[in-house]
Amino acid sequence: MIILSRPEIEALIDLDHALASVEAAYIAASDGRAVMPPVGYLAFPDKDGDCHIKYGHIAGDPAFVVKVAAGFYGNPAIGLPTSNGVMLVLSAETGILEAILLDEGFLTDLRTGLGGAIATRALCRPDARRVGIAGTGIQARWQVRCLQQAMPGTQFSFTIWGRSKDKARETANALKAEGIDVLVSPDLERLCRDADIIITTTPSREPLIRDAWIQPGTHITAIGADAPGKQELDTALVARASRRICDSAAQSLDHGEFSTAFRAGDISAETCVELGAVLGGKAAGRIHPADITIADLTGIAVQDIAIANSVLDADRRSQHR
Amino acid sequence: MIILSRPEIEALIDLDHALASVEAAYIAASDGRAVMPPVGYLAFPDKDGDCHIKYGHIAGDPAFVVKVAAGFYGNPAIGLPTSNGVMLVLSAETGILEAILLDEGFLTDLRTGLGGAIATRALCRPDARRVGIAGTGIQARWQVRCLQQAMPGTQFSFTIWGRSKDKARETANALKAEGIDVLVSPDLERLCRDADIIITTTPSREPLIRDAWIQPGTHITAIGADAPGKQELDTALVARASRRICDSAAQSLDHGEFSTAFRAGDISAETCVELGAVLGGKAAGRIHPADITIADLTGIAVQDIAIANSVLDADRRSQHR
Repeated sequence: MIILSRPEIEALIDLDHALASVEAAYIAASDGRAVMPPVGYLAFPDKDGDCHIKYGHIAGDPAFVVKVAAGFYGNPAIGLPTSNGVMLVLSAETGILEAILLDEGFLTDLRTGLGGAIATRALCRPDARRVGIAGTGIQARWQVRCLQQAMPGTQFSFTIWGRSKDKARETANALKAEGIDVLVSPDLERLCRDADIIITTTPSREPLIRDAWIQPGTHITAIGADAPGKQELDTALVARASRRICDSAAQSLDHGEFSTAFRAGDISAETCVELGAVLGGKAAGRIHPADITIADLTGIAVQDIAIANSVLDADRRSQHR
Repeated sequence: MIILSRPEIEALIDLDHALASVEAAYIAASDGRAVMPPVGYLAFPDKDGDCHIKYGHIAGDPAFVVKVAAGFYGNPAIGLPTSNGVMLVLSAETGILEAILLDEGFLTDLRTGLGGAIATRALCRPDARRVGIAGTGIQARWQVRCLQQAMPGTQFSFTIWGRSKDKARETANALKAEGIDVLVSPDLERLCRDADIIITTTPSREPLIRDAWIQPGTHITAIGADAPGKQELDTALVARASRRICDSAAQSLDHGEFSTAFRAGDISAETCVELGAVLGGKAAGRIHPADITIADLTGIAVQDIAIANSVLDADRRSQHR
């Protein structure tokens, strides 16, 4: 059995391979080739913590994956990271545990970044260059990194906004150190009005991005809303969008960015298309340059399966060297 | 972080400690102190395999447990064990992964044996001595071992029956080697008519134990039926029982031994009492010596929590030596 620590996993990751794996997994999910039961959930309200268990299997895959991901939001106050987690890879032929990836939440962060980049690449205008990022957490960094990785020839201009200007500057500096220039904007409205692509990565519980700020032709990838009560975009904006795309319609309409508009009766389920269907050519993504497109990503188990398999493939390749 | 292999776990296990832990956990579950979301499930029909994910938290416990247990029923034909599994122990304060128990299904087998022994001890007549076991698999052995452990002063006479007489003899020989005498019976009816306690451990999909064979005063612990379609006891026997006890009423009435009688309208949910309520003195178990009592155990996450904590307690004690 293989046990890999977080540093070992970080050293093994091949971003291009992982990107292709996650993209293929979205298509498999929308083709009906993936079994993804409802996500398991435990809450620890006294500690502002929770634990999600995502698991599933893609038909024909030799292995299946169970991911346990914990988020305890008081951890930073005691010097610990918010996210923790582990991925288990088991044989789909014998049930034998084949690998334990002690990624401490790293692979979840990464696959979320890759998912955002895949959605953004698929749905933005071909000439989109100005990227506005709302939020300054770990996902803000991953969305920038992964988008640049997914579209390597593109000269993006990144701008970031956060409630804390210091944190925004810190994030911009960290990305600068990795070779990606990011401007800091004090004004979310300005950032939105000037963007071709907006990526929202906040845990906001009330809409941050106003409908009136969004120009025709904009693409928005919304990452933050992943639980009941969270919302980053104006309900009117969700309703106004030309195209609504999501990783899982069931999740997005229940507790994702589309849920408020759906519950209000402003949008119907039929107008929300799955990302895998767009990637697989079975549904339209952006149709017109002036379309406003929104991709809402709540996270699905096939991303975990794909990223775990990508790590294990890299591990196998490294053994053969 | 602690990682323990199966041999390490086997060496650490203290059966009396584990027995007390599992008993306390049943009481906690019936007192409403445990959170046990619905069991996660993945099926691999092409390989006659499945995977159950049980997880939960007992209020106040410093840790919570996620168990992944796979059963691939074609494995023995290729020289591999049917069961595999792993238990993860995470901090309920920080979400940090504290221990990985690579038990390969051992702890599930053991906690199932302990659960059966706890139910049998609580519900049999005080003068019950003659124990009949139906089935010859790993659970047959654990039920015998754990019952003897749970009632150390009692001079039981054990008799075993199986569809394969060879397997029954093999099981009897294995237990004999551990110091427990077990007779083999070729006749299930005889075994049932002569028993004070009957423990059923088969994967049968049709009733094996006929109503007419069961004498007043008998206690039956039914372990086998843990999924839709499985049934070991005559529906009429379930309906005739004076007392019906189960570890989880929701599971037992849905896919356990009580489900057929429940769906037929022969029994009501109110007549099925949880084992934890009996153990905690909140519900009656056996009332009269002539009562026929049936305990149906489908397995619940608090057993896993209890057994994992028991192993980690033993590990801590061994470190302090």
